[in-house]
Amino acid sequence: MRTVDIIQKKRDGETLSADEIEFLIQGYTRGEIPDYQMSAWAMAVYFNGMTAKETADLTMAMARSGDQADLSSIPGVKVDKHSTGGVGDTTTLILGPLVAAAGVPVAKMSGRGLGHTGGTIDKLEALPGFEIELTKERFLEQVKSIGVSVIGQSGNMTPADKKLYALRDVTGTVESIPLIASSVMSKKIASGADAIVLDVKTGSGAFMKSLNESIQLAKAMVDIGEQVGRETVAVITNMDEPLGLAIGNALEVREAIDTLKGQGPEDLQELCLVLGAHMIQLGGKAASYDEARALAERMLQEGLGTEKLKQLVAAQGGDAAAVDRLELLPAAEYQIPVLALDDGIVSHIDAESLGITAMMMGAGRATKEDKIDLAVGIVLKKKVGDRVEAGEPLAELHLNRNEPMFTEEMTQQIREAFAFSADEVPRTKLVYAVVTKQGVQMV
Amino acid sequence: MRTVDIIQKKRDGETLSADEIEFLIQGYTRGEIPDYQMSAWAMAVYFNGMTAKETADLTMAMARSGDQADLSSIPGVKVDKHSTGGVGDTTTLILGPLVAAAGVPVAKMSGRGLGHTGGTIDKLEALPGFEIELTKERFLEQVKSIGVSVIGQSGNMTPADKKLYALRDVTGTVESIPLIASSVMSKKIASGADAIVLDVKTGSGAFMKSLNESIQLAKAMVDIGEQVGRETVAVITNMDEPLGLAIGNALEVREAIDTLKGQGPEDLQELCLVLGAHMIQLGGKAASYDEARALAERMLQEGLGTEKLKQLVAAQGGDAAAVDRLELLPAAEYQIPVLALDDGIVSHIDAESLGITAMMMGAGRATKEDKIDLAVGIVLKKKVGDRVEAGEPLAELHLNRNEPMFTEEMTQQIREAFAFSADEVPRTKLVYAVVTKQGVQMV
Repeated sequence: MRTVDIIQKKRDGETLSADEIEFLIQGYTRGEIPDYQMSAWAMAVYFNGMTAKETADLTMAMARSGDQADLSSIPGVKVDKHSTGGVGDTTTLILGPLVAAAGVPVAKMSGRGLGHTGGTIDKLEALPGFEIELTKERFLEQVKSIGVSVIGQSGNMTPADKKLYALRDVTGTVESIPLIASSVMSKKIASGADAIVLDVKTGSGAFMKSLNESIQLAKAMVDIGEQVGRETVAVITNMDEPLGLAIGNALEVREAIDTLKGQGPEDLQELCLVLGAHMIQLGGKAASYDEARALAERMLQEGLGTEKLKQLVAAQGGDAAAVDRLELLPAAEYQIPVLALDDGIVSHIDAESLGITAMMMGAGRATKEDKIDLAVGIVLKKKVGDRVEAGEPLAELHLNRNEPMFTEEMTQQIREAFAFSADEVPRTKLVYAVVTKQGVQMV
Repeated sequence: MRTVDIIQKKRDGETLSADEIEFLIQGYTRGEIPDYQMSAWAMAVYFNGMTAKETADLTMAMARSGDQADLSSIPGVKVDKHSTGGVGDTTTLILGPLVAAAGVPVAKMSGRGLGHTGGTIDKLEALPGFEIELTKERFLEQVKSIGVSVIGQSGNMTPADKKLYALRDVTGTVESIPLIASSVMSKKIASGADAIVLDVKTGSGAFMKSLNESIQLAKAMVDIGEQVGRETVAVITNMDEPLGLAIGNALEVREAIDTLKGQGPEDLQELCLVLGAHMIQLGGKAASYDEARALAERMLQEGLGTEKLKQLVAAQGGDAAAVDRLELLPAAEYQIPVLALDDGIVSHIDAESLGITAMMMGAGRATKEDKIDLAVGIVLKKKVGDRVEAGEPLAELHLNRNEPMFTEEMTQQIREAFAFSADEVPRTKLVYAVVTKQGVQMV
């Protein structure tokens, strides 16, 4: 088999066999196939796409390219959840305890953040003492005993995906649905998921800017799940404004805890109930979506999610008291309001731009080597549909630097992220569609 | 400027500016832009093509990427000729002396062969003593004094094209008309040509298998010439059977000398008269094509081309006596006929396959490091349209090895290159079309 023939076959619109895809991915992982051949192949995929079978074969080849987690010793259906990126997304911190409380085992490996999207692992480190590195044995034992563990990715998982993703980033081949879908699904499968719930963000703050593209991506991922025997449900959700109010690590942890207590922002709570219900249903803990949703609501109302979070924090060496006493979390020295200059109704909030502002404030990493400041970030005071009067706060900066020039620049960026209208603006719709193996259901 | 943005622009079907192309090509030449970005860009070009302006900008950027020959001290219009590959193509050896005799200065830099297509420089070395490495000064002086010099390419000419060509070869991006056209034209322009005659081969033995593709390629190259002020004429010629009868270095030199004496194979002589006439016309030595053609014919009939070849050989240290005494050229020890097994009329001869057989016999290089045997090769005894009886020779092997197994294998390959018909077969058409800045003229 020759790589150039495989590239030409894809270029000419033919379908690659499982063997050809395996040859390509394992050869690339071992460094036998050079980057310049993979990038030409990826560009040919960009133009000619891949069939559902090819996409599933690619997913499994990438899942097999490195270490694979073996969760078979944990009883029950292990349901994993993935969000296709977004800003101020704290759902993992809420959903882990919530569905674990409902009896679905959560054995979660998460990553750190890069760019304007935060990572769950960074957020967890805002909980004083929380250990994100556990041995494999301790990780499995903890899930068996308390039903939940969240750790940082270790070992050499999906190295093919890591190499290919980095390559696509610099060769104009990111925006290919089969390549995005197989990247996401390969990681979930290597992490040992039996079933998968996907939160596919759509809108200006997300990777997929249009609803149609987002549905295509969701379908591709649900198809992969179907082909490889991992039932997958995808929920298409709005990213035309940030989720919740907080952007920044400790600020988001605080918001997650509030939400588990039933006191969080409405949109964040609703999304967690929707995603949580799908996870509970796939995990076999409810016979229907409605039953699962009712169970999820009960976990919030009765504080069982909060209890589970405390167990999780304590089991991983953290200070569980911080869950009740939020003042124990890192806090920034300065809180500076960003005031509205005119009257109006908020018509749009650019989530991506706020994510970048928060990153510049120190809440995220521009490069892998950057250190982040867990305390800093942005708290929104207004959301889409809210009426604002000149002089009212739009948001609040949380900063550890008192530098007027810098504060002014950040303030300016945040103001520019808001758009206003003179007329009434409807509240943002949260869930657009649910994609399952049965098809697309618009909400 | 960022390379990834340029790749995405081409991927999205937009037009690149001259500055963007310059950035890409000079960055790639200097090693600042990696292969994996260039291959992704080349694949995007494969799918989306390039405008005439982009193709011309790419050509000039590649021509500027290394050394450029300065032929301005030679008076007159320097007309260069290029053949887009083919098998048994000896035209440069004939055309150089022929058009020089007609007064068009020929300052030619040629390459060595690789694969199944022979190189002019290898063929010239079959002339005893012929030096292919001259200093720049001696090269220019020789053209000024006798009107012709042919040397091997030296220095660092079109390094961007060399790198890009090698990359395209392994990334499935060879078959792109703007990339092929700019590759050919950049070399001619860097070699100092004022005007260019192209012999675009079409058919089974050529790079472009269909007439339509060949015309598209010819048009692209003529367009480049027009854009950059180098008048270009392309002749589309047949490669459904080898040109002439000889395949192999010394065998082709012998055939070239025969042709200059007016005693060569009909098709080879006709092609040289057509190409030569276009060169003479572009060189300003005749007012019309017909006048140029008459002048070229006179150069053959009066032996002036042969005289010029003797001057060329003598000026470059070779034994000019070999032009009259062909027994001084290298000759193979064994001549073995390949006999027809059945009666029939030759309907097709696979030029590419014969080229590969000749390469396996030692006439060409499979890799750059291979040594070639100047004496060995194949001489055809039958061409398309010829009637053959069982037991008659189809061709003759010229070999320096007496190994029955090897001889049998080569014999077998040559037989398989011939196809036969029971009915009359028309002689192969030699010239299909001429493409000039005025348009395409079918012949």
